[in-house]
This record gives sequence, C-alpha cells and structure tokens, in this order.
Amino acid sequence: MYSFINDYNEIAHPAVMDELNRLAGKRFQGYGTDELCASVAEQLKQRIGRPDADIHFFNGGTITNLTAISHVLRPHQAAIAVDSGHIAVHETGAIEATGHKVFTVKSESGKLTPALIEQVLAAHTDEHCVQPKLVYISNSTEIGTVYRKEELIALRKVCDQHGLLLFMDGARLASGLMSHASDLTIEDIAQLTDIFYIGGTKIGALTGEVLVILNPSLKSDFRFSIKQKGGLQAKGWLLAAQFNALFADDLYFKLGKHLNEMANNLADFFTQQGFEFLAPVESNQVFVILPDELATKLLAHYVLSSMPAPEAGKTCIRLCTSWSTTQQDVDSFISTFNSLR
Amino acid sequence: MYSFINDYNEIAHPAVMDELNRLAGKRFQGYGTDELCASVAEQLKQRIGRPDADIHFFNGGTITNLTAISHVLRPHQAAIAVDSGHIAVHETGAIEATGHKVFTVKSESGKLTPALIEQVLAAHTDEHCVQPKLVYISNSTEIGTVYRKEELIALRKVCDQHGLLLFMDGARLASGLMSHASDLTIEDIAQLTDIFYIGGTKIGALTGEVLVILNPSLKSDFRFSIKQKGGLQAKGWLLAAQFNALFADDLYFKLGKHLNEMANNLADFFTQQGFEFLAPVESNQVFVILPDELATKLLAHYVLSSMPAPEAGKTCIRLCTSWSTTQQDVDSFISTFNSLR
Amino acid sequence: MYSFINDYNEIAHPAVMDELNRLAGKRFQGYGTDELCASVAEQLKQRIGRPDADIHFFNGGTITNLTAISHVLRPHQAAIAVDSGHIAVHETGAIEATGHKVFTVKSESGKLTPALIEQVLAAHTDEHCVQPKLVYISNSTEIGTVYRKEELIALRKVCDQHGLLLFMDGARLASGLMSHASDLTIEDIAQLTDIFYIGGTKIGALTGEVLVILNPSLKSDFRFSIKQKGGLQAKGWLLAAQFNALFADDLYFKLGKHLNEMANNLADFFTQQGFEFLAPVESNQVFVILPDELATKLLAHYVLSSMPAPEAGKTCIRLCTSWSTTQQDVDSFISTFNSLR
Amino acid sequence: MYSFINDYNEIAHPAVMDELNRLAGKRFQGYGTDELCASVAEQLKQRIGRPDADIHFFNGGTITNLTAISHVLRPHQAAIAVDSGHIAVHETGAIEATGHKVFTVKSESGKLTPALIEQVLAAHTDEHCVQPKLVYISNSTEIGTVYRKEELIALRKVCDQHGLLLFMDGARLASGLMSHASDLTIEDIAQLTDIFYIGGTKIGALTGEVLVILNPSLKSDFRFSIKQKGGLQAKGWLLAAQFNALFADDLYFKLGKHLNEMANNLADFFTQQGFEFLAPVESNQVFVILPDELATKLLAHYVLSSMPAPEAGKTCIRLCTSWSTTQQDVDSFISTFNSLR
Repeated sequence: MYSFINDYNEIAHPAVMDELNRLAGKRFQGYGTDELCASVAEQLKQRIGRPDADIHFFNGGTITNLTAISHVLRPHQAAIAVDSGHIAVHETGAIEATGHKVFTVKSESGKLTPALIEQVLAAHTDEHCVQPKLVYISNSTEIGTVYRKEELIALRKVCDQHGLLLFMDGARLASGLMSHASDLTIEDIAQLTDIFYIGGTKIGALTGEVLVILNPSLKSDFRFSIKQKGGLQAKGWLLAAQFNALFADDLYFKLGKHLNEMANNLADFFTQQGFEFLAPVESNQVFVILPDELATKLLAHYVLSSMPAPEAGKTCIRLCTSWSTTQQDVDSFISTFNSLR
Repeated sequence: MYSFINDYNEIAHPAVMDELNRLAGKRFQGYGTDELCASVAEQLKQRIGRPDADIHFFNGGTITNLTAISHVLRPHQAAIAVDSGHIAVHETGAIEATGHKVFTVKSESGKLTPALIEQVLAAHTDEHCVQPKLVYISNSTEIGTVYRKEELIALRKVCDQHGLLLFMDGARLASGLMSHASDLTIEDIAQLTDIFYIGGTKIGALTGEVLVILNPSLKSDFRFSIKQKGGLQAKGWLLAAQFNALFADDLYFKLGKHLNEMANNLADFFTQQGFEFLAPVESNQVFVILPDELATKLLAHYVLSSMPAPEAGKTCIRLCTSWSTTQQDVDSFISTFNSLR
Repeated sequence: MYSFINDYNEIAHPAVMDELNRLAGKRFQGYGTDELCASVAEQLKQRIGRPDADIHFFNGGTITNLTAISHVLRPHQAAIAVDSGHIAVHETGAIEATGHKVFTVKSESGKLTPALIEQVLAAHTDEHCVQPKLVYISNSTEIGTVYRKEELIALRKVCDQHGLLLFMDGARLASGLMSHASDLTIEDIAQLTDIFYIGGTKIGALTGEVLVILNPSLKSDFRFSIKQKGGLQAKGWLLAAQFNALFADDLYFKLGKHLNEMANNLADFFTQQGFEFLAPVESNQVFVILPDELATKLLAHYVLSSMPAPEAGKTCIRLCTSWSTTQQDVDSFISTFNSLR
Repeated sequence: MYSFINDYNEIAHPAVMDELNRLAGKRFQGYGTDELCASVAEQLKQRIGRPDADIHFFNGGTITNLTAISHVLRPHQAAIAVDSGHIAVHETGAIEATGHKVFTVKSESGKLTPALIEQVLAAHTDEHCVQPKLVYISNSTEIGTVYRKEELIALRKVCDQHGLLLFMDGARLASGLMSHASDLTIEDIAQLTDIFYIGGTKIGALTGEVLVILNPSLKSDFRFSIKQKGGLQAKGWLLAAQFNALFADDLYFKLGKHLNEMANNLADFFTQQGFEFLAPVESNQVFVILPDELATKLLAHYVLSSMPAPEAGKTCIRLCTSWSTTQQDVDSFISTFNSLR
C-alpha cells in the first residue's frame, strides 16, 4: 500500500478528465497558440488580479523551474535557496546544468528569511564569487511549512533593497494557500513575487503547471526558452483545459483544503499519541518522528519516504495526503498503525 | 480551417482516451517506477525484437532529443545532421544549449548518406575542431522522405567504421514505417540504430514518445539525465498507458498507414493537376509547389505552412495529414482548391 | 622547417621582452586591478578615440571569443558567422559549449555581408528557431581577406536595423588594418563595432589580447564573466605591459605592415610564376594553389597547412608570415621552391 | 603597501625570466606540440615517478580546474568540496557554468575526510539527486592547512570503495609539500590521486600550471577539452620553459620552503604576542585573529584580506608570503605592527 507516498498517485480529478474528454473531435493550433490557451490564461490573470501577467503552461515542476530560472539569470548569477529546497536537492542538478549555482543556506523551518538572504549577500562581494540574484522559495515548502503574508512582504522588501528577483515554486501551491497557518492569498503572491507557478500535477491535474511572469523585465522572448529547454507542449490546449477544470468553481482551492484536512487528521492522531514532528504540520505533508522499531514496522506495511530523525534511535516518516485521499484512508492507516504498536 | 497544418491538432485517438479513462481510481508509484510502465516497456521490447533494450517514456520530441543526445555525447563531441534536421532548425538551439554543436550538411533529400558523413569526418581531423560522434537522422524526415532498409544498413556500416553512434528521431515513425516507399520494419530499426524513439504525439497519443536505447554503453544512469533535463514525468504511467493503447492490435501502424493514404490521395490529385513537389511524397507530408498567386489564395482559406520554392514565382505549401484526417477532409480540400483556380 | 606555418612561432618581439624584464622586482595588485593595467587601458582608449570604452586584457583568442560572446547573448540567442569563421570551425565548439548556436553562411570571400545576414534573419522567424543576435566577423579573415570601411559601415547599418550586435575578432587585427587593400583605421572599428579585440599573440606579444567593449549595454559585470570562464589573469599587469610595448611608437602597426610586406613578396613571386590563390592576398596569409605533385614536394620540406583546392589535382598551401619573418626567409623559401619544380 | 596580500605580486623568479629570455629567436610549433613541451613533460613525469602520466600545460588555476573537472564528469555527476574550497567560493561558479554541481560540506580544517565524503554519498541515493563523483581537495588548502600522507591514503581508499575520482588542486602545491606539518611527497600525490596539478603562478612562474592525469580512463581526448574551454596556449612552450626553470635543481621546492619559513616567522611572532589563528599555520598563509581596532589600524597600512573572526569583536587578517618575500619584509611588517599597538 502506498496511499500516503505522494500526491500524484492517481490519474486526475474526474472534472479534469471530463474536460479532456470533452475536447474529443475538436481541432486546435499547436504549441499553445490556440484559443483555449488564450482564454484560460485570461481567466487565470483575472483570478490572480494581475491582468498584466504573462501566463505559460508547462508539463511538470522541474522543467518549469529550470526554464524560468535559466531564462531570468545572466551567466554569472545564482539562485539562493534553503538547504532542503527542491532545486537544491531533488532535481539532479537541473539548475547547475543550465550553468547556474544554487547557493544554499541552512534553514530548519524550510523557509528563507531576510536575515538568511543578507548573510548570503554579505559573503558575495566581488567578481570572484557568483552574484546572488534570484531568491527561490516554495510554498508549501519541502518540509510542509507555509509562508505567512508578513514573511512574504519581508522577502519582497529585501529583494527590492538588493535588486533580487523573487521566485515562488508552487508545486504545492493549493495546499500552501489553504493552510490553516497561512493568511496568504493567490492575489498576494501575484503582487509580491516576480514570477511564480501554480502547480497542477500534485492537486488533481493529469499533468501541468502554470507559470506566471509578473515582472515585465522577465517577459521578453520567454517562449524561446520554453522551446529550447524542451517544454513547449505540442498540444498546449491539453494543459490549459485542465486548469479550466481546476479553476472552475474554485475546485483548485477546495482540493487544497481537502488534502490539508486529511493531513491535519493524521497530525491530530499523532499528536494525541504523543509523537512529535520534524516541522509543524501546516499543509499536506506530515513528517512524524517515530522510534526506529515502530518506523520499521510501518514501512513493512506502507511504501513511504523516511529519513533519519535528528534524535538518535528515531526515524522521520513522511506522510503525504492527496486530493483523492479519503477519511477512510486516514482511518484505515490509523487502525493499521495502532495494530503495529 | 487548419486541418492540414499538422498532425497533432486533435486531443488523442479514442482508444488512447479510453485507456486513460480506465485508469481512474487506480493508484500508481511515481516517476515511471510503476508496474504499468514496466509491463508496457516489456511489450514494446518484445514487439521490436530487442528484449535487451532499455525503454524510457518521454512527453515530447525536443525533450527526448536533447536528453538523449546530451547523455551520450562527451563535451567535445558533436552531432551530424542534414540542414533541414529538426535539431538543427526547429528546436531553438536545444542541443547547443546542452553544450554540443550540431554540424549540418546540405541534403536535398532530407536524408544523410555515408558520403555526406565521411565528408564531415574529413573536415574534422584534430582537437581544434569538434569531434563528430552522433549521426542524427529522422524517419520520416522533415521533408517527408523515408529511409530504405539498404540506406539504413549503409549508415550503420559507416558508423561502425568510424565509431559513430546512430540515433533516429522517430517523431513521425509510424508514417515513416508505413510508407509505400519503405521496406524498413521497426525490428530493422531496433537492430540497426544505437538509440531511437517511437513518436506518439503525432500519431494519436495525447502526448508521449518512447525512447529505446539499444547500445549497452549508452544505458547507464540514463534516468539521472531524464530527471536533470526536466523530462521525468511524475505520473509516468500516463505515458505508458497511451502506448499500451497504440500498440494493442497494431493500432500504431494502422494509423500510420491511414495518414499516409490520405497524403497519397492529396498527392495524386496534385500530380494529376500537373503540380510538382519539393520532395517525393513518401509519408504524411506533402510539399506541393504552386504559383505564388494560387498559394496566396489557398493561404487565405487554410492555415498552412509555406516557404519560398526553389523556382522564382512559386511557393511551396506544406500539407500534413493526421490520424484523424478523413477522406471527406481530403475531398473538401480538393473542392476548395479547385474553386480557387 | 616551419617558418611559414603560423605567426606565433617565436616568443615575443624584443621590445615586449624588454618591457617584461623591466618589471622585475616591482609589486602589483592581482587580477588586473593594478595601476599598470589602468594606465595602459587609458592609453589604448585614447589611441582608438573611445575614452568611454571598457578595456579587458585576455590571454588568448578562444577564451576572449567565448567569454565575450557568452556574456552578451541571452540563452536563446545565436551568433552568425561565415562558414570559415574561427568560432565556427577552429575552436572545438567553444561557443556551443557555452550554450549558443553559431549559425554559418557560405562565403567565398570569408567575409559577411548585409545580404548574407538578412538571409539568416529571414530563416529565423519564430521561437522554434534560435534568435540571431550577434554578427561575428574577423579582420583579417580566416582566409586572409580584409574588410573595407564601406563594408564595415554597411554591416553596422544592417545591425542597427535589426537590433544585432557587431563583434570583430581581431586576432590578426594589425595585419588586417595595415593591408594594402584596406582603408579601415582602428578608430573606425572603435566607432562601428559594439565590441572587438586587439590581438597581440599573433603580432609579437608573448601572449595577450585586448577586448574593447564599446556598447554600454554590454559592459555590466563583465569581470564576473572573465573570472567564471577562467580568463582572469592573476598577474594582469603582464598582459598590460606587453601592449604598453606594442603601442609605444606604433610598433603594433609597424609590425603589421612588415608581415604584410613579407606576404606580398611571396604573393608577387607566385603571381609571376602563374599560380593562383584561394582568395586575394590582402594580409599576412597566402593561400596559393599548386599542382598536387609540387605541393607534396613542398610539404616534404616545410611544415605547412594544406587543404584540397577547389580544382581537382590541385592543393591549396597556406603560408603565414610573422612579425619575425625576414626577407631572407622569403628569399630562402623561393629558392627552395624553385629547386623543387 | 601590499607585500602580504598574495603570492603572485611580482612578475617571476629570475631563473624563470632567464629561461624565457633564452628562447628569443628560436622557432617552435604551436599549441604545445613542440619539442620543449615534450621534453619538460618527460622530465616532470620522471620527477613524480609516473612515466605513464599525461601532462598538460595551463595558464591559470581556474581554467585548469574547470577544464579538468568538466572533462572527467558526466552531465549528472557532481564534485564534492569543503565549504571553503576554491571551486566552491572563488571561481564565480566556473564549475556550475560547465553544468556540474559542487556539493559542499562544512569543514573547519579546510580538509575533506572519508567521513565527510560518506555523509555526502549517504544523502545522494537516487536519480533525483546529482551523483557525487569527484572529490576535490587542494593542498595547501584555502585556509593554509596541509594534508598528511595518511590522510591522503584514507581519501584514496574511500574513493576506491565508492568509485570516486580524487582531484588535487595544487595552486599552492610547493608550499603544501614543503610544510613542516606534512610528510607527503610529490611522488605520493602522483600515486594517490587520479589527477592533480602543479601550480606555478603562485611560486615564481610568470604564469602557468601543469595538469597531471594519472588515471588512464580520464586521458582520452583531453586536448579537445583544453581547446574548447579556451586554455590551449598558442605558444605552449612558454609555459613549459618556466617549469624547466622551476624544476631545475629543485628550485620549485626550495621556493616552497622559503615562503613557508617566512610565514612561520610571522606566525612565531604572533604566537609570542599571544594572538591566535583561524587555522594552524602550516604553509604560506597566516590567518591571525586580531581585535577589531588593531585590525583596522593594520588595514590602514597594508592592503590585506580580512574577514570576520568567529569571535565577536575580532577580525581575521590573512597574510600570504611569496617566493620573493624577504626576512626584511617580515621584520619591517613586525616593526610596523608593533608601532600600531
């Protein structure tokens, strides 16, 4: 069983499949130049309150990150990320492969702060070092924490002071935005970042992410970069159609709320049982710390990610809820878990 | 109207959509490590007669080309292609962006020959030049021609003589293989190349290509390259499922036969009317040469690719049939065409 | 014997060595931040009539080309060069290794023209192709021809019309400028190009080239690029000192005049004997066409570059004069040549 | 005054200049194919006890590092370095610019250990991460410490166990080898590493480093990489000649001993005065920790590198002795220092 291994283990939300099925027999132009891409882009721009934005549809997170970052940086410029950042540890050096250093700073919260950024800037003073230029954050983060509005405002401010670009990886944006711990809205993000993406693959899309470019200086020739990096989908409309479904009637946000609730239910159980977490449970990922023996038993029943916990003799287990996770899945897990103790 | 602008203007063959719809509610592991990917890979290896091959699923042609080529070349090595080659002209420098030169040779047939390759080798003799290492061909070619078996055998031989790798871009492999002009089989290709891909996007898949690695020396660590270049699909099974549908009951080849027939019907009409072609019509692309005035009228009715013809006063119009093209589409086009003369 | 194999076969002009020897015991700051670099840069800016230029010292031609071109291009942009261009054929794909395509056009004169550039632009119309941005020329060219002032003005004009950058590789600038066929001055070049370099290695420097950036939009952060590409000389002053010697009393131009005269003397001899040339002899390279048999005999006596001549049965031999070539060297060669016939 | 800012502030040791001056009037073939390069390479191979090595001459440290590392790594592979490693912090992302991640680990000693390497390997387990492949060390290190023979043997062992390559940056190899704290010989290094370089620029060469490739699997086509990266010196013999001078009568090692003695004399003074150091003084770099006020006074008299010390209110000052540093320079510095207290 691997119901909590990740948030992309089922094909797509029924509304997404319905939308795709409705396209049968219709003919479209290629490479995202069709009217469906145009109209969905228009809707999304209205939804985020930035009619001036540029919208580009992508097929996955890594290709979105590497295309966007390599497009906006000059050769000697680098990204700043936390040590657990997706581009730093889980993309096989995708950013470096485009020529750019990812400079990492240690962060227990999984979040960047102005102080951490200024510490990086202080260490990069001349042409013998790379020039830090892009601040990479993800929301929710790799360890499930989320940014508050004041934190994002503070990052915007430090970026403005030092001429930095603020990029938000939104692979889990629905979950991040619908967190009980967050007061951020998608409109805030569209005001405060230079560029961000709205993840679909991890929230019910078949596959797809929407990159939103807000800073006008980053917009020119972006389609050249998409094509060059291999991300220009021949049938662009199949990506747009999915976001049509996801943003109709705010399904995107409802699904985000749902998977967070499922995670909260798991977290509540662990808390009641006296277990601790690697980081506060604020989105759809639960990093619970278990005694090694119990973790081993659990991993015999479930395919789950695990890693050494900070404390010796303990293991951190990652549970990730999905748009398709049901309360029954949660109850069943709890029941199994109890039977193992 | 743009029914002949390309071969990827409808969402997917019904059998493909059916297969995807059947996956609803099922749960799979991520990144191509699931059992569906494994079983479809196994089927494909049997079908091409190479149980020893490595199979990788991709989402599009450019990402397949750039991942494969950058994986197999060392930094100082280059690809050889014809001047109309897709990697040379229509991928925005994707190969160069990974650090490798694409050395082009002029070819009116759109095909590479041993003589052309040896001419390139003769011009690259020492460390002041790049080292030609990979022979890039596509079948069918960018101008719709196809390779015969003896031509591919001859390329294999020259590659063996000079330690070159032979890579076939199969974006339009179904059409190329089912050409009236070709005696090649997919089993032949799997014997004669080092690496090739089976295109799906242009023959009824929603999106997807299958890369086949035959030469054992090219196989190691290939998944690192897929991930690094952004091509590792989170839901790998959605690609595998489509090829499950396309290779059941040889649908892939039947569709190839069908779109070639539609192209032949268009070609027959033009021939009867006394028009000439840029290249022999051997697959699903028809490059017909029209007087400028007639071409202009036609382009007012259809969204079609056009380019200057070799002869002054004439324009070359490209008509591309699709798996969904019907005889009615052809008849309707002919009728419109006749009305414009 | 290889007195005509190249123009960098002796260590350095005595004036250059004297200048270096005079530096013994003096202490300088590192990485080109010293006062000697500053003062020589200032002199050079005055000499070329562009006090607003940025000056950077390099150690060789390829590192200069690759650093400059990768600095000024965005990832999707390409250079345009003639098919014999140094960056196209003799730098082992150095430009491609930084991610950029070099698009080549056939040119029998070895020179680019507005018509050739416009032909490239016409073939690159959308984001499926690279975006041609930099016009790469060399003066003298790889086949020894030189640009006239009106030719350079015409290139500037076409660049302005299309937003292109004009870069001149000046590895053999002294020879190019002192050509009997040229009315160009170094001041003209500094007015008409966006960026160019003044070659030293092939005209009596121990090693060294001076890159001149004229277009203000290309100047920012250039030292980051030099360092990143490995070209920032720890002892920058050793490069500056050599140009101090070369530009004192116009030695640079006098040496250019001298090696051109030596080439002219060789060319006159061949002309008198009825031989033809691959290209007009306008600088210090002579590409003479000889019957195969005679070429073979000659190559048994001299280490010289040779290549197939356009006409069957003939070989093209390249003779390259140097700042250290003497009339005695020329006479001795002629004598040997006559003895072989 | 900046006599202790670095070890490359004078042009070259007189023996090096003499050797260069002696080359006047002699003619050589280009690009390192001459007999002088061959004979010096042969001598060096004998000196290090590895007649089977490949020897390549370079013009500077960064170009040597980036050429070597990009040549030996495949696209998905990464280097491991300490956080103070030169490639990690002082080469403007040169390695990343060739596509490779430099994974850093914190090390107070400036040295890598088997435990640190194994910690990196444990964190890189699948294709979502880069593949650590090359262990980068420098001797002496960036903070002046040196490797003992047993330490290098231990690194070799861990590399062998895990299929890693061991690369030593020898920019300050003379100083590292002649350290009072080291029992390593150049022959040991040639036995224990896969590839290393013998630095010249920081020990009396005009400019130059010698790369030594020991592992046969890394040798093929290396000259292609040198040329592509811009490091193939047209006049290769000018690099070889300098090492001819430096290795005649073991001058290289004598100079290393001398600058270490000068550093020891400085260190002894500071120790006597009760100051502490950032790291043990084992080579030609002294990182002394001073109260902020005193550091400020000192920096008003000398151009020196400084950095915040670990302890608040203190500053770390770096003094670097050179082959040309005299006891008088040391005494004069001490006298000035004393006058400031």
